[in-house]
Amino acid sequence: MPEVVFPLDSMKRFTEQRIVGHNRWHPDIPALVRVKPGDTFRVDCREWFDGAIHNNDSADDILNAPLPSVHVLSGPISVEGAEPGDLLIVDILDVGPIPQEDSGPLAGQGWGYTGVFATRNGGGFLTEQFPDAYKVIWDFRGGVATSRHVPGVSFVGIVHPGLMGTAPSHDLLRKWNAREQALIDTDPDRVPPLALPPNPDSAILGSLGGDDFDRVAREAARTAPPRENGGNQDIKNLTKGSRIFYPVFVEGANLSMGDLHFSQGDGEITFCGAIEMGGFMDLGVDVIKGGMDTFGVSENALFMPGRTDPQYSEWLAFSGTSVTLGGEQRYLDSHLSYQRACLHAIDYLQKFGYSDIQAYMILGAAPIEGRLSGVVDIPNSCSTVYLPTEIFDFEVRPGKGEPHKVDPGAGVPVARA
Amino acid sequence: MPEVVFPLDSMKRFTEQRIVGHNRWHPDIPALVRVKPGDTFRVDCREWFDGAIHNNDSADDILNAPLPSVHVLSGPISVEGAEPGDLLIVDILDVGPIPQEDSGPLAGQGWGYTGVFATRNGGGFLTEQFPDAYKVIWDFRGGVATSRHVPGVSFVGIVHPGLMGTAPSHDLLRKWNAREQALIDTDPDRVPPLALPPNPDSAILGSLGGDDFDRVAREAARTAPPRENGGNQDIKNLTKGSRIFYPVFVEGANLSMGDLHFSQGDGEITFCGAIEMGGFMDLGVDVIKGGMDTFGVSENALFMPGRTDPQYSEWLAFSGTSVTLGGEQRYLDSHLSYQRACLHAIDYLQKFGYSDIQAYMILGAAPIEGRLSGVVDIPNSCSTVYLPTEIFDFEVRPGKGEPHKVDPGAGVPVARA
Amino acid sequence: MPEVVFPLDSMKRFTEQRIVGHNRWHPDIPALVRVKPGDTFRVDCREWFDGAIHNNDSADDILNAPLPSVHVLSGPISVEGAEPGDLLIVDILDVGPIPQEDSGPLAGQGWGYTGVFATRNGGGFLTEQFPDAYKVIWDFRGGVATSRHVPGVSFVGIVHPGLMGTAPSHDLLRKWNAREQALIDTDPDRVPPLALPPNPDSAILGSLGGDDFDRVAREAARTAPPRENGGNQDIKNLTKGSRIFYPVFVEGANLSMGDLHFSQGDGEITFCGAIEMGGFMDLGVDVIKGGMDTFGVSENALFMPGRTDPQYSEWLAFSGTSVTLGGEQRYLDSHLSYQRACLHAIDYLQKFGYSDIQAYMILGAAPIEGRLSGVVDIPNSCSTVYLPTEIFDFEVRPGKGEPHKVDPGAGVPVARA
Amino acid sequence: MPEVVFPLDSMKRFTEQRIVGHNRWHPDIPALVRVKPGDTFRVDCREWFDGAIHNNDSADDILNAPLPSVHVLSGPISVEGAEPGDLLIVDILDVGPIPQEDSGPLAGQGWGYTGVFATRNGGGFLTEQFPDAYKVIWDFRGGVATSRHVPGVSFVGIVHPGLMGTAPSHDLLRKWNAREQALIDTDPDRVPPLALPPNPDSAILGSLGGDDFDRVAREAARTAPPRENGGNQDIKNLTKGSRIFYPVFVEGANLSMGDLHFSQGDGEITFCGAIEMGGFMDLGVDVIKGGMDTFGVSENALFMPGRTDPQYSEWLAFSGTSVTLGGEQRYLDSHLSYQRACLHAIDYLQKFGYSDIQAYMILGAAPIEGRLSGVVDIPNSCSTVYLPTEIFDFEVRPGKGEPHKVDPGAGVPVARA
Repeated sequence: MPEVVFPLDSMKRFTEQRIVGHNRWHPDIPALVRVKPGDTFRVDCREWFDGAIHNNDSADDILNAPLPSVHVLSGPISVEGAEPGDLLIVDILDVGPIPQEDSGPLAGQGWGYTGVFATRNGGGFLTEQFPDAYKVIWDFRGGVATSRHVPGVSFVGIVHPGLMGTAPSHDLLRKWNAREQALIDTDPDRVPPLALPPNPDSAILGSLGGDDFDRVAREAARTAPPRENGGNQDIKNLTKGSRIFYPVFVEGANLSMGDLHFSQGDGEITFCGAIEMGGFMDLGVDVIKGGMDTFGVSENALFMPGRTDPQYSEWLAFSGTSVTLGGEQRYLDSHLSYQRACLHAIDYLQKFGYSDIQAYMILGAAPIEGRLSGVVDIPNSCSTVYLPTEIFDFEVRPGKGEPHKVDPGAGVPVARA
Repeated sequence: MPEVVFPLDSMKRFTEQRIVGHNRWHPDIPALVRVKPGDTFRVDCREWFDGAIHNNDSADDILNAPLPSVHVLSGPISVEGAEPGDLLIVDILDVGPIPQEDSGPLAGQGWGYTGVFATRNGGGFLTEQFPDAYKVIWDFRGGVATSRHVPGVSFVGIVHPGLMGTAPSHDLLRKWNAREQALIDTDPDRVPPLALPPNPDSAILGSLGGDDFDRVAREAARTAPPRENGGNQDIKNLTKGSRIFYPVFVEGANLSMGDLHFSQGDGEITFCGAIEMGGFMDLGVDVIKGGMDTFGVSENALFMPGRTDPQYSEWLAFSGTSVTLGGEQRYLDSHLSYQRACLHAIDYLQKFGYSDIQAYMILGAAPIEGRLSGVVDIPNSCSTVYLPTEIFDFEVRPGKGEPHKVDPGAGVPVARA
Repeated sequence: MPEVVFPLDSMKRFTEQRIVGHNRWHPDIPALVRVKPGDTFRVDCREWFDGAIHNNDSADDILNAPLPSVHVLSGPISVEGAEPGDLLIVDILDVGPIPQEDSGPLAGQGWGYTGVFATRNGGGFLTEQFPDAYKVIWDFRGGVATSRHVPGVSFVGIVHPGLMGTAPSHDLLRKWNAREQALIDTDPDRVPPLALPPNPDSAILGSLGGDDFDRVAREAARTAPPRENGGNQDIKNLTKGSRIFYPVFVEGANLSMGDLHFSQGDGEITFCGAIEMGGFMDLGVDVIKGGMDTFGVSENALFMPGRTDPQYSEWLAFSGTSVTLGGEQRYLDSHLSYQRACLHAIDYLQKFGYSDIQAYMILGAAPIEGRLSGVVDIPNSCSTVYLPTEIFDFEVRPGKGEPHKVDPGAGVPVARA
Repeated sequence: MPEVVFPLDSMKRFTEQRIVGHNRWHPDIPALVRVKPGDTFRVDCREWFDGAIHNNDSADDILNAPLPSVHVLSGPISVEGAEPGDLLIVDILDVGPIPQEDSGPLAGQGWGYTGVFATRNGGGFLTEQFPDAYKVIWDFRGGVATSRHVPGVSFVGIVHPGLMGTAPSHDLLRKWNAREQALIDTDPDRVPPLALPPNPDSAILGSLGGDDFDRVAREAARTAPPRENGGNQDIKNLTKGSRIFYPVFVEGANLSMGDLHFSQGDGEITFCGAIEMGGFMDLGVDVIKGGMDTFGVSENALFMPGRTDPQYSEWLAFSGTSVTLGGEQRYLDSHLSYQRACLHAIDYLQKFGYSDIQAYMILGAAPIEGRLSGVVDIPNSCSTVYLPTEIFDFEVRPGKGEPHKVDPGAGVPVARA
């Protein structure tokens, strides 16, 4: 095992650890961990809600999920010699649930969860159809996930960090805050909100204290969105064996990570989210001096996925266009067309006995592919969603007979909003 | 060879063929071809501009491309017994360029083209960056495409029809026209336009004549967008071996198809388009009676891709978020985030010696993957674009040395708008 | 379509064609076809028995198959500038059944066959278990094979030439004849024989006539085995997109080919054979001057398979060791261990209702993988055979319930020897 | 982490552990570990020579490798309710190097080795070409192996147990001993030997002692070969996610395992062997009552590989036939044809600067594929070996230029026999 440079004790809360991480982006959060180019090391990661979500059959914890507290991140980790303008190479040597702990109360101890937020508490991709809070527990056996809340389906996890990135510079941070506030200002009372402004409530800022803490807590960016530094990209293919190239904005790069997922469909459409868990990452780092200019990278990560992603060879795909459910024509809205494709898949799976929320949960957690198939054919974009048929333990393909009927069992726990 | 039920003579224009197809959607276009469930048959397809684009080094033909004339479609084909509410099964038994004709003036005779429309004539996904008209010619050798206009790259074609679908009912057609006109009305003078209304100019309506022709030409929907009937979905994975399930809206289903592509990246971001060609499709059809209700399909095709798509195992991926190039924050705009991911890829490839338009053309034509990676992380969506590294004949991965420099050659023909 | 340099008329026998091919290897068979490095061209190929096997439900034709007449080969094709010591690059640009002819009496016209020879007429891999003659007809639909003689199974063809190679030099030919005769001499009366010596009976030698014909017919090597020149390698992965590097032994290389297969399992264990058919190959050729020495190639082809082989992702595998059915221990006999693995697969499939010969036919024709898993663990080698589960239209995996029972139907035609 | 039912302390020798395993097959070795159907559990495994091979640059340890002591196996593990005639389901939930120990003197602590035995001490697949002892050390970084002894190559490990199986019955053991002795008797003084008879020297028999130990040590079968019970099958595809079905011959099945490999090419042609290491396996077990008869399994494992094997999509393949290097024709000898294919690959790689033994080591350790391509074309079988081109960090494909020359460095340690 590589040296654990950022350890987490599963028995303690995130803020009580020997090294305390953070849940905001800010260049002034000190890097308590220092590594060198060429090093390999292990980082423990806590699930994004620090244990607030439980392995039970109630969705109350999702309904009341403490959103200001996310994401609890491990880091920052300073890489010797990394300077603004460099590319930071990060090799994901391994990533997985909490090692040696196959059972316990913390997500990552042999289990994980997929939740859907209530509209009034964050919402989600299909919040119009699913306004309440829902939760599904998934059990891990080897690399495979199954759920007592969603029968008839099992799949090989595509394990990855939902969130990883370098620290922003002060300039970049200011830019973020300005542009996001401008968006919020267009509809400040929207539910769910358009964006999340800095919020000192529940801020965790590593070793910062006193006035610095207060100042940084007021300024620091929330971790929900992906941004120029990588961040919460939720790219399901950042699996073991991936090599990622991050732009560096501050001395030392100040890499942080968290929000591990046992599996996720493209888009993380359930928002809360993939199959959420705590766990570990084994990482290697290196630096390409001046790499941002050399390779034309001004922002956002580029990456090469690993070679051991789960292989499925038979897919059932659904398409959607950018017309709203109410029949309104939108202009090349690929977000909408992906919603419509997903809703078509949900309609379909219901004919096999699933409830609508069970179908939604499958799309959020299983290794589905979401593609921008057509983005130019005015006025409709075309998005598609691909489900591997082999994850179902029954015949899921359309045919001339009646569809097989799954016994949906007790179904998905819900907490009415 | 299956019986050719819709033949095209490469020496004649589309309107001079024995059976004349159509370039509009309307339920009253008569089906001159009739097949039975269980039949297999061949359909010839003309490239979408009916030969207006030439194998030369000028982009003038793209600049002046006759947009009202597209897409020339083969069909309608009536399937015995198919009725509204059924699902029409279409098996793509084979699809390819014009058989037995490896050279000639018609796209599909051993070559194809990728174009980018000028902003004033249709535009495209990156029309702000590329306001003029551009054209690239690709040569086919076996299943592989190369271009004299884009050196250093070759790839196995992922051959598919850009457009296939069933005829709309009168009701459905009215719905289309109403909602699209409503969108146009929000900005009727926009260049490029928000949508394309019915246009009698250049309409081709099969065997229709007289008053019927005039009425239908005024009412019939344009073929640019994908809609409830399938249509111009531009799904690159509708390759040989695919099985598609179309909703049926009229007696006989009235299936039509065209706009064949030798290859395409997800999104067909160059708009004009993929690698465009004429060719043939071998099809099998069957009917699931009442299948729309049985399987919950109210609209849009569902499908199962074939098993012989080209295999690549090493990918270089770029990510983007929904912030405009000008720095404005947009709310979960996956269309924008895919644009930004593609622009990042273009920035990167320019460092290897390509011109920006060469890089753009690669993304439009090669089998790249475009994924909706994150669609919930307010306010930024995250889209990603994956390039197979094996399509380049040089080292395209980032490293510590200087990037290899391609000799870009004469480059991409352009016609200033 | 590339120029057809070696055409075959389906209505005429192989010896009545405009250009007559050959069914023996000899350097003195004249090359009537000449191509240049860089050329692409089409070659028609006749099925290996020149139409002696029919699309019916009797195995009599297999029982009496005219073995001295095989394989009817297209060629030789002389490549300008190729000299002994060079490597001949052959690109398989395309390969398929007889184009434009989907039905007819000739294998390749929409159908193909798999046969098993009787022990007294060639035998096969499992001739002790299957001493008689058997035949199965497969129908092609798109790229997929199914059979009225083997229900419940369908698979995407992995189309390839069973046989392709360059002409031997006189020296090499002498070596072949000497070493094979030496083997025959160890047991000259064995049934089936150990090897096939030159045999003037039924020899076809292109344009040769007179004394030359008689001399060459006496000397020329039979085409059954693969040898230093490539030849009858029966490598199922020489599919479309493959690039092959053949050693050159004579001026012009003198390339020949035939024995096309619509599909085959590793080993072609049924011998007669894969799914046999006539068809066409589109080829490109080039020459690496002095390539044999440069790349250390003294004999046998090296190659790079294409990227569009059918993809299956779930496999059921059987293993075998080098112990005979009678219980005798053999020393690291990988041939025997593969036989045992195949017999285990046959035992297994019989539990699902198949007859033993139906199971054998599946292994011979479907894209199964045969691997040399362990070759050092004295005294047992371990071979394995992998069946794609997705080719069966029922649940073929072992479980706690009873196996599904296929209705075997009329079964496999047999002709008792 | 599942419960560790068979723990190993890396600081102690195999015979000094709390539970002592075994290195012979015999039904009377007591099962000290008991599990139930449905259980999941962890088993630690020691590398097969129990630490006799060191991480250094000398091959002396391979030259003097203590062959009578192998393989040190973990087990037997008794599964409640399993009886002769059942099928034991074994799910490989995970398998890997020694967890939490990334450096140390024991293979599996961050490194592993590939050896080639001297002819006088076991030999190997190519012992005629490589009569001495050789050793290569591989370092693990994430899932990737590289070696200071073999530059220019790195590959994703295909981690698996070389050996796993159930205990034989007394009857089955007698059969093994009889048939293997009969083989030995045909050439009792052969070097290397034809097979390995029972040998009390160095026998480890779990908790057995006294007279029982002496009796069992005299009777027990060596672990080198695979047999009816599975055993040393060296199937590289028994990776994480695999499900294996073993025949049960004794009450409780008495499952044992060991000989873990970080990676291996098909055949384990280097014999000593793959990339050898100690580590762990997480397993799940279940029982199909009467499954041997239900599914026609009389012997040998059947299995379904996992879905996360490393993916490579470009291969360079070599073929061989059953003619000896000396020119002698053998009859359908697939073992020989695989040797010839491997020798061709070695010839080829030497042209890129590798020494012959470096090339051999690559074939032994990297995830190469070995296929039985043709097994019926008398008198030559055709075997093929496929190398993934992407494992080389230089251009390894044949072309018109000179091959790239690797600096072979200090090369492979050798100990002259």
